Amino acid sequence: MNGILLFGHGARNPEYIEPFRRIRAAVERLQPGVPVETGFLELTRPPLEAAIEALARRGVTHVKVVPIFFAPGRHVLKDLPELLGSAMDRFPGIEFEVAECVGEVDGVIEAMAAHAVAGA
Amino acid sequence: MNGILLFGHGARNPEYIEPFRRIRAAVERLQPGVPVETGFLELTRPPLEAAIEALARRGVTHVKVVPIFFAPGRHVLKDLPELLGSAMDRFPGIEFEVAECVGEVDGVIEAMAAHAVAGA
Repeated sequence: MNGILLFGHGARNPEYIEPFRRIRAAVERLQPGVPVETGFLELTRPPLEAAIEALARRGVTHVKVVPIFFAPGRHVLKDLPELLGSAMDRFPGIEFEVAECVGEVDGVIEAMAAHAVAGA
Repeated sequence: MNGILLFGHGARNPEYIEPFRRIRAAVERLQPGVPVETGFLELTRPPLEAAIEALARRGVTHVKVVPIFFAPGRHVLKDLPELLGSAMDRFPGIEFEVAECVGEVDGVIEAMAAHAVAGA
């Protein structure tokens, strides 16, 4: 079974999680029944490892990791592969796939531009 | 004249600027002739102040600042108002307006969710 993991940086303020909750809800609306979890590098809970564990418990065997980042930097290019390497050791029955960062995607770029000009 | 300022955090890697270039190009396509600049808090050039200066040189009297952040945290709620406060002292003829963070906007949330389920 396929699952989706929304991977974010994390932040000190509790409101930070709100857009992640909304993306998750939108994904669940688009694909009812597909397990979706959010996982963070630091500060915000749950950490990525716990999100993967939650997907494993739900019977997921293929995880599409979606970096909720504007551009691939150290966190996506170095920290994420390290975390996924450990997860592969721990969950040998799960395959991982890393999608493009949301900020690299045409539709997201267009939506941000539309927001920038809204009401102008 | 209205202008748009895309405000980002900044990062060490030079590729970080790419999505900002693309949002700027999309905004210029949507509103040809409206001055658009990108400005950053740290690491990536130009700094916010320099971007405001560039808009002032282009005759802009109203700047819509669009935070390219997923959620409002310290950088948007504290650092940005401080920077804009200094800019208001320096450019008394310019009005500033701060838009919602892109990650709070329905269309952007939907586009990120669509990316998360693409090909799944």
